[in-house]
Amino acid sequence: MNADTLLARLAADRARVDTRLEALFAGRSAPAPRLEAAMRHGVLVGGKRLRPVLVYSAGRALGAADDALDAPAMALELIHAYSLVHDDLPAMDDDELRRGQPTVHKAFDEATAILAGDALQTLAFEVLARAAHPRLSTLMLTLAVAAGRDGMAGGQALDLAAVGGHPDVDALATMHGHKTGALIRAAVRLGGLVAVAEDDPRIAALEAYARAIGLAFQIHDDVLDVTGDTATLGKASGADAAHDKPTYPALLGLEGARSRARELVEQAITALAPLGSEGVPLVGLARYMIERDH
Amino acid sequence: MNADTLLARLAADRARVDTRLEALFAGRSAPAPRLEAAMRHGVLVGGKRLRPVLVYSAGRALGAADDALDAPAMALELIHAYSLVHDDLPAMDDDELRRGQPTVHKAFDEATAILAGDALQTLAFEVLARAAHPRLSTLMLTLAVAAGRDGMAGGQALDLAAVGGHPDVDALATMHGHKTGALIRAAVRLGGLVAVAEDDPRIAALEAYARAIGLAFQIHDDVLDVTGDTATLGKASGADAAHDKPTYPALLGLEGARSRARELVEQAITALAPLGSEGVPLVGLARYMIERDH
Repeated sequence: MNADTLLARLAADRARVDTRLEALFAGRSAPAPRLEAAMRHGVLVGGKRLRPVLVYSAGRALGAADDALDAPAMALELIHAYSLVHDDLPAMDDDELRRGQPTVHKAFDEATAILAGDALQTLAFEVLARAAHPRLSTLMLTLAVAAGRDGMAGGQALDLAAVGGHPDVDALATMHGHKTGALIRAAVRLGGLVAVAEDDPRIAALEAYARAIGLAFQIHDDVLDVTGDTATLGKASGADAAHDKPTYPALLGLEGARSRARELVEQAITALAPLGSEGVPLVGLARYMIERDH
Repeated sequence: MNADTLLARLAADRARVDTRLEALFAGRSAPAPRLEAAMRHGVLVGGKRLRPVLVYSAGRALGAADDALDAPAMALELIHAYSLVHDDLPAMDDDELRRGQPTVHKAFDEATAILAGDALQTLAFEVLARAAHPRLSTLMLTLAVAAGRDGMAGGQALDLAAVGGHPDVDALATMHGHKTGALIRAAVRLGGLVAVAEDDPRIAALEAYARAIGLAFQIHDDVLDVTGDTATLGKASGADAAHDKPTYPALLGLEGARSRARELVEQAITALAPLGSEGVPLVGLARYMIERDH
């Protein structure tokens, strides 16, 4: 798959999930319109839709139909969106800009942002429950474990604890492995589980792939925070340093961080061997993780 | 069932769910210990455990085994606990005392309280997913719809919008029907759904019962806020008036509110007719809703 084909497919998957996320807010008689508008703002104002793209790519590689992948793709993005809404709150990162737009608590108010994040999380589980997949229990458990105290929320707490401290590379990897890695792994795993059962060896291959690209993604995010500009990123560049957050470039140097990300992408590609030629689109996606400019 | 038997059974059900909630935090290697401690504080510091009690009572009335009711009972209490943690935040009700103890953001900090509430919500869905009930999709959907924008979170947003306003009795009922009523209905419905399918007429009977006791519960809460004392309530009495919140006693007078609550309890008892003698414990529970002193 060449780069143009990959980019076209990414754009198509983004458009696909955006249409479906949009539909969650259309034609409804919402009991609390302001809450609804804040939820909508939280999930529909831009975004790379990386997690949905991973669901579609991993699921297709194992033979799942696109229709069956929509619910996990939406659920993952809703969990991600809720975490951003809460992460931006004054008591957390206190960010005013996200995806080039005011954050939810700036566009609405703090109480509404708390509730909107809460309700976006619930909506993720609602959307997945409605899909009524035969392996629903495993899908639900994968999503919940990835989002909760042993996954993303645990990682957010580790991140809070790390501010102003001096974690080493391992501690940083543990934090990111929870904070962003858990959802990225869940995206790939959910895609795979739509197609085949948990004990299929290709699920383990996808998990090894996801672990490596998850960390590469984060390292590249830290690199972009140093090298990117605010307009392209859609959020303030240099924010990590301003927040006194530990980063890979700070620990490994900019070139060391880039080199580590490249190694991880090669590991991810190696892990795909059991998928044979079906894994090719996932190879392109792995490289994209460290080539994107935002 | 006489009052002593009812109270003994309520105490036994509370102890049962407390033991199981406690076990969710035992023998774990938590990635983020401070988050874990805050979650534990949020869910294990006291509480009436009304929603679990409703799950057990409704489920047993339709023939479910206690073991099969534990997961929905825990899930409902975890959702309730998360909502209290967030509701107490400075940007929301700004309460310092809950169940006679410091609220989570006072005992820990605001960021940790936001994350603890988030992770308690996730844990609710995790616990329910683990139960892998044959009707999991319906159970999950019931919980998610009751907790989210069309249920509790929607009600919280309506509550925010109502502060300082002058809603009439219908608007107040709509707000409470979402904010507290949705979870109370979900508790009764989940208990029932563990035993029988959604189209069993006894599910509709339980729902009519739950709708009436949910509103009676809230009216009685408003009454207690006027007549109770802080020590018995475990939270500041008179808080509604202090927050300029609309209440039933303010709209109907104290005696009018009490009388409305009594009517609703009679409606709830009438709705139980299709359950025959199996509904008797639920009758006691309905009366308890408006006789409790906290």
